Amino acid sequence: MTRDSLVSQIKDKKSFLCVGLDSDLQRMPACLSGEKDPVLKFNQEIVAATHDLCIAYKPNVAFYESRGAEGWKTLEETMKCIPDNVFTIADAKRGDIGNTSRMYAQAFFKNMNFDSVTVAPYMGVDSVAPFLEFDDKWVILLGLTSNKGSADFQMLKSEGRNLYEEVITRSQKWGSPDNLMYVIGATHPEKLAQVRSLAQDYFFLVPGVGAQGGTVEDVVRSGMNDQVGLLVNSSRGILYASDGPDFAEAARAAALNLKKKMEEFIV
Amino acid sequence: MTRDSLVSQIKDKKSFLCVGLDSDLQRMPACLSGEKDPVLKFNQEIVAATHDLCIAYKPNVAFYESRGAEGWKTLEETMKCIPDNVFTIADAKRGDIGNTSRMYAQAFFKNMNFDSVTVAPYMGVDSVAPFLEFDDKWVILLGLTSNKGSADFQMLKSEGRNLYEEVITRSQKWGSPDNLMYVIGATHPEKLAQVRSLAQDYFFLVPGVGAQGGTVEDVVRSGMNDQVGLLVNSSRGILYASDGPDFAEAARAAALNLKKKMEEFIV
Repeated sequence: MTRDSLVSQIKDKKSFLCVGLDSDLQRMPACLSGEKDPVLKFNQEIVAATHDLCIAYKPNVAFYESRGAEGWKTLEETMKCIPDNVFTIADAKRGDIGNTSRMYAQAFFKNMNFDSVTVAPYMGVDSVAPFLEFDDKWVILLGLTSNKGSADFQMLKSEGRNLYEEVITRSQKWGSPDNLMYVIGATHPEKLAQVRSLAQDYFFLVPGVGAQGGTVEDVVRSGMNDQVGLLVNSSRGILYASDGPDFAEAARAAALNLKKKMEEFIV
Repeated sequence: MTRDSLVSQIKDKKSFLCVGLDSDLQRMPACLSGEKDPVLKFNQEIVAATHDLCIAYKPNVAFYESRGAEGWKTLEETMKCIPDNVFTIADAKRGDIGNTSRMYAQAFFKNMNFDSVTVAPYMGVDSVAPFLEFDDKWVILLGLTSNKGSADFQMLKSEGRNLYEEVITRSQKWGSPDNLMYVIGATHPEKLAQVRSLAQDYFFLVPGVGAQGGTVEDVVRSGMNDQVGLLVNSSRGILYASDGPDFAEAARAAALNLKKKMEEFIV
């Protein structure tokens, strides 16, 4: 998907909500227990109930991988039920030497037709570059993550700059606002404004709203740019809003609640 | 596998060779084209031809993942053909927030019974800890990688210490020489000795010998400790020693060549 298409979608829907498909077999509503593939059915229902409210879906690859080849099949089938005009993110945190990153790019971009994949920066330019060679596909590079462990290395200072700042600055030589975004956690609202000043035209994927403590208002205040520039993710708060047979309706209500908070900020 | 068992295996076999199973469907010998699963057959033949010469196998997960659910099936089946007393490494470079790393640990440790998995450190302690909760399973944390991009962030200096040194030092608070190893590329022999001084009792997984330019002698000189402490990996040089029907024999010869260089260093 091109950046123009993504921005148009955001303006049309008046939403920058990303729904995280962290779909856990252990947490499926009891009403799906008779299904051949409960997780697939769950994802299909969630997508049907929310795709007019969100602009992206983000399957968390670990949740599928933890079920082996069968889980991969569910992931492949899930991709087929997401409308083409909704942005898709393989949340995979991959990254390896060049020939290996190329294989990961094949898995997500070619085989499953994801629009983007999250990539870890530790191994540097040749671990990221193979993902940037595809037209209209995106790398979403880890910048400042939402978890407690983000303090361990991302905050280390080198010549006055934190590691995450160095990652965000240096990687702009590898990609552009048309094929590169950053993961910036909503749990650091004070840092979001500073990161925005380092990467004004780039989209940020922002986890950490809801369960982890961040709010839409804080994220907008610190992180929005003139093309919105934000994909705000919610996973558990939407997926598990109800564990009854009304799970899809409840997911829709939770998504709508977040989307309404976003509407007013989109002109 | 316990550290004692790993060390015993190294002493018994007089080898610290790890064979990297970067088995690429595009590079399979023509003689396997009639097989239902050429990569599985290839891996079975490679393992049969080399398991008395090496002490570990390291499937590169990207090469399987790039073939989707089918590739995962091949990986699962490959694990079944590796003898129990040989150490296994899922070269996956995973790492995410706690609940997600737990899912990856499930995939590799529980479902496929790997002894270890390679993990990227960028997200810090809570991304690594879930992998350390399994008895006799190992995290192999990226320290200083063998690729060109290792210079981008791993070499950044903070308070006089490079990032990779900080990773190696800090992570020793999370694990111990009984469940934690480090990836240290053979392409930096001068750094290997320095890393050894930071982590004297830890095993290092050392890629970059052969195709990437490192030698066994250099690695031993700089990196060996009193329990050997090294797993030296070779992938392409062994797997693709011949593309004819003698591929397994040729792989054995290439593995034997490396193993002979190792023998003399093991007392």
